[in-house]
Amino acid sequence: MAESFKTLPGFRDFYPEDCAHRNYLFSVWRRVAARYGFKEYDGPVLEPTELYKKKSGNEIVNQLFCFDDKGDRAVSMRPELTPTLARMAAARQRDYRKPMRWFSIGQFFRYERHQKGRGREFYQFNCDTLGEDSSQADAELISLSIDLMRELGFTKDDFQIGLSDRNAWVHFAAESGLTEEQTLNFLQIIDKMGRTPAEKLESSLAELNLTKDRVDAFIAKGATVSERIPQVLQSLEARGLSEFVKVNLNIVRGLAYYTSTVFEIFDVSKGMRAIAGGGRYNQLVKLIGNADMPAFGFAMGDMVILDLIKETPHANQKMLEAIHDQEAADIAFILADDDRYDDLLACTQEARNAGFSCVTPLAAQKVGKQFQAAEQAGTRLAVVIGSEYPEIQIKSLKDRSAITTQKESLLATISKTLDS
Amino acid sequence: MAESFKTLPGFRDFYPEDCAHRNYLFSVWRRVAARYGFKEYDGPVLEPTELYKKKSGNEIVNQLFCFDDKGDRAVSMRPELTPTLARMAAARQRDYRKPMRWFSIGQFFRYERHQKGRGREFYQFNCDTLGEDSSQADAELISLSIDLMRELGFTKDDFQIGLSDRNAWVHFAAESGLTEEQTLNFLQIIDKMGRTPAEKLESSLAELNLTKDRVDAFIAKGATVSERIPQVLQSLEARGLSEFVKVNLNIVRGLAYYTSTVFEIFDVSKGMRAIAGGGRYNQLVKLIGNADMPAFGFAMGDMVILDLIKETPHANQKMLEAIHDQEAADIAFILADDDRYDDLLACTQEARNAGFSCVTPLAAQKVGKQFQAAEQAGTRLAVVIGSEYPEIQIKSLKDRSAITTQKESLLATISKTLDS
Repeated sequence: MAESFKTLPGFRDFYPEDCAHRNYLFSVWRRVAARYGFKEYDGPVLEPTELYKKKSGNEIVNQLFCFDDKGDRAVSMRPELTPTLARMAAARQRDYRKPMRWFSIGQFFRYERHQKGRGREFYQFNCDTLGEDSSQADAELISLSIDLMRELGFTKDDFQIGLSDRNAWVHFAAESGLTEEQTLNFLQIIDKMGRTPAEKLESSLAELNLTKDRVDAFIAKGATVSERIPQVLQSLEARGLSEFVKVNLNIVRGLAYYTSTVFEIFDVSKGMRAIAGGGRYNQLVKLIGNADMPAFGFAMGDMVILDLIKETPHANQKMLEAIHDQEAADIAFILADDDRYDDLLACTQEARNAGFSCVTPLAAQKVGKQFQAAEQAGTRLAVVIGSEYPEIQIKSLKDRSAITTQKESLLATISKTLDS
Repeated sequence: MAESFKTLPGFRDFYPEDCAHRNYLFSVWRRVAARYGFKEYDGPVLEPTELYKKKSGNEIVNQLFCFDDKGDRAVSMRPELTPTLARMAAARQRDYRKPMRWFSIGQFFRYERHQKGRGREFYQFNCDTLGEDSSQADAELISLSIDLMRELGFTKDDFQIGLSDRNAWVHFAAESGLTEEQTLNFLQIIDKMGRTPAEKLESSLAELNLTKDRVDAFIAKGATVSERIPQVLQSLEARGLSEFVKVNLNIVRGLAYYTSTVFEIFDVSKGMRAIAGGGRYNQLVKLIGNADMPAFGFAMGDMVILDLIKETPHANQKMLEAIHDQEAADIAFILADDDRYDDLLACTQEARNAGFSCVTPLAAQKVGKQFQAAEQAGTRLAVVIGSEYPEIQIKSLKDRSAITTQKESLLATISKTLDS
């Protein structure tokens, strides 16, 4: 008896239909990043565990897929990209003109409870500007994130950018007399505020000599508590993108390394899931690579956004049309006379040499079955090679029209029929 | 003092220029696979270690990046894709019309000695036909591999397909009275024959009661010892691809699961490196997933082929041109008057909304420096926003021609200038 193998919990098989969704998302990520002049890079999937300790915050470190390799190195499958980016940028900062505009699409691994919208592996789009501290750099990336959402088919009724400034909270904490350690604790409390029961929240704040009223009053002040937020808003206004953005001081982001502007994209219509987020991290490159390089970045995972696309009819429709355009073959070659197999192969190769995508039979099969397979796959044309060869019949599988041609004019006829 | 982090030995950082090479290769892999009607899929990077034991052969199992996860499962970072494919295909074989034409592009991990053309991680293109045992299916994939090489710019003077039949050797071994275990050992000897000193080879063969003369005599018989090879050759002949293929019985492939046709692509001009290889494996899907599904597949890694592209001027030139077409931004916006920043942002956004790729300044900078950066990046047009706004100057960075336009006709002028 054969053993039966299963996919590990929290890991995914990408069958062709799932892979097409994934690749559609990747292609939108790439297209919009290119529209902003960003260049793709990537780092190793496996890194020294040390790279993540104290840099990423405890939550991530506890979720590492970590082990000792055969050379006794403590290594981890990457849980996020930013520490790798900081290492890479610092190591070769002299080779690149500043600001560096870099993006990456890659897979990440966190051992956490497997649930909807969260697996033990996921893909993430990471987009960062390095070597520029201006608020325009912040606005440029927020603008990019908005254009990503629009390119996926979402409108201002589907999503919203929440804009905040972690630095405003750090000032608040300092004015409230909190120590550095208390401040980190306090930021965690704010981060989790929306998900914390009122009583628990009050008692956590009381331990820091704070009240929910004082915190709420600060949040209500909005943009005025920050130097940065008004500048970012003005830039987005000039770009005509104000309607997508709302100041929301509740956002501080979980990761330890953010220094001022932070933002998240929320799903407005389906329950306020966080779709993407990021912010400014001006100290991390120095901490990891000893190079002084202010930076701003954000990341978007694949799981929540793909769920949201599938739940949103206009976005889903856009995805399915793009996938059909991308995936459907131009031509199915149909073998109508088994003795003409070599001729069919010659015609297939000729069409492929000209760049057409062609499905060709790998064994004799009934003509009806061949047509059925071509139609189900959404193929555009059927090219029938039969006993009349070198006379060839070309059938449009869209409008069922048929046209007869000769071998010599096969390519020209295919081009004309595909264009019409 | 900051710590200094390093990339693990055998792992690679993909800086933008390296990532562009990688992505060029990926795009050719995808384009040619689509031309043959293949659909992309992918599996998990982490799999149960058991999946590779006894299926992949000892060499690979000894090189696994394996560990126990936080749930005490014995897991491995994937060293190859075929066992995953066999698991996936078997699990959902009823959902797909046969033959299944599937390809994948992914990363793999083997802990081996780090050397030129071989790292501890690498990318691989995997391309497989499942559910079809015909020799046409073998020829179709060999044809695809030839078209891959041609699409990368290589000619018949650069590479050659070595075609063989492992089954012929199994018959030879049976006629020579070898047991099943001796046969596996014998296949390993043939696989390594070209790299084994004559004396060692003779003594290994002598242990099996064989001589090098007998083996050489068998190899000299070529296609005639195989039922399959002549059929595959005829199909490639019908496709006009004979000149790329040569029978070479020395090829048996290292992996344990191949059953008949096997082939490799060699670099002819630069030292006969193996670029890609594969073959028929009719038992593996049954062994792993208990489904009777004949299969044929091949894989090409990224490291040897990228080395070969860079060493081969016509292939390298083709790659560099494709990368430039892909990577260069359409427009660099130039800020010639700091007071016009908001106007520049509005124009940038308008151009991006129309789909143009635009680099825009994130802080004030000297106009000369802005032009210099745009030219070095290979940008096509410079759009200058200055004190005359809404009058705008557009400069071609290719032929230095300049044209003046108004804000209202910006997009139309950009389109016209880019097309010319």
